[in-house]
Amino acid sequence: MSDLTHLFEKIAAGEIPSCKVYEDDLVYAFLDISPLSEGHTLVIPKKRYETIADLPDDVAAALGRVLPRLAKAVTAATGTSAYNVLVNIGAEAGQVVPHVHFHIIPKHADGSGLGMRWDAGTLESGEELAKRIAAGMG
Amino acid sequence: MSDLTHLFEKIAAGEIPSCKVYEDDLVYAFLDISPLSEGHTLVIPKKRYETIADLPDDVAAALGRVLPRLAKAVTAATGTSAYNVLVNIGAEAGQVVPHVHFHIIPKHADGSGLGMRWDAGTLESGEELAKRIAAGMG
Repeated sequence: MSDLTHLFEKIAAGEIPSCKVYEDDLVYAFLDISPLSEGHTLVIPKKRYETIADLPDDVAAALGRVLPRLAKAVTAATGTSAYNVLVNIGAEAGQVVPHVHFHIIPKHADGSGLGMRWDAGTLESGEELAKRIAAGMG
Repeated sequence: MSDLTHLFEKIAAGEIPSCKVYEDDLVYAFLDISPLSEGHTLVIPKKRYETIADLPDDVAAALGRVLPRLAKAVTAATGTSAYNVLVNIGAEAGQVVPHVHFHIIPKHADGSGLGMRWDAGTLESGEELAKRIAAGMG
């Protein structure tokens, strides 16, 4: 496999063709070429940040702000109302391209879409863990 | 099962206890009581919106803006670098509580976290579909 590091920067710059659905100063959205379902869309910052934790405030806000409009447009165009929004960070969590991307994945009546295995446990020692996380919010 | 419609509003208002990790004017974050892995956190708008498409711009931006700080804090507290961020919209896509919530789900070395089935296809007629979605962006 070729080096995918700069793939999405090249797509956002138009150097590599894509099926674009949206673009503004900070954000670019296009159809995934390997979709899980019809309408599977990727939403990326134009500039490359490898993880969500790396996103500056304005870019993170811009990505959040466009999600409602994109969700509406994708579901309207594909005739579904159910979808998953997913970001994979780190190879262990399924990240392939080291450039943050939000997947919008319609869930269609034929079952196509994101398949999930939900092995939930029970929260234990939550107070202590919550305090440690809250402390990291600065 | 009791009616879950207003559960997260009550949690954000402190009427139902939770392991809070973050709060601001628009956003509340707390530990999922049925976690997929240690550190599984839910990020919600304080006010109830059933779907992402329903979120006003400022709330959607506020949710996006806090994700980097929360991702950093959750991974630091749990000692992992891999995670998934997931939103399920619609019962068919796994939504249980009709109040938008972003899951931050650490992927730990023991394999705990979000399990996914990724049955990808190949994009066909992408140009036409992209045009229909783009038209819906107004």
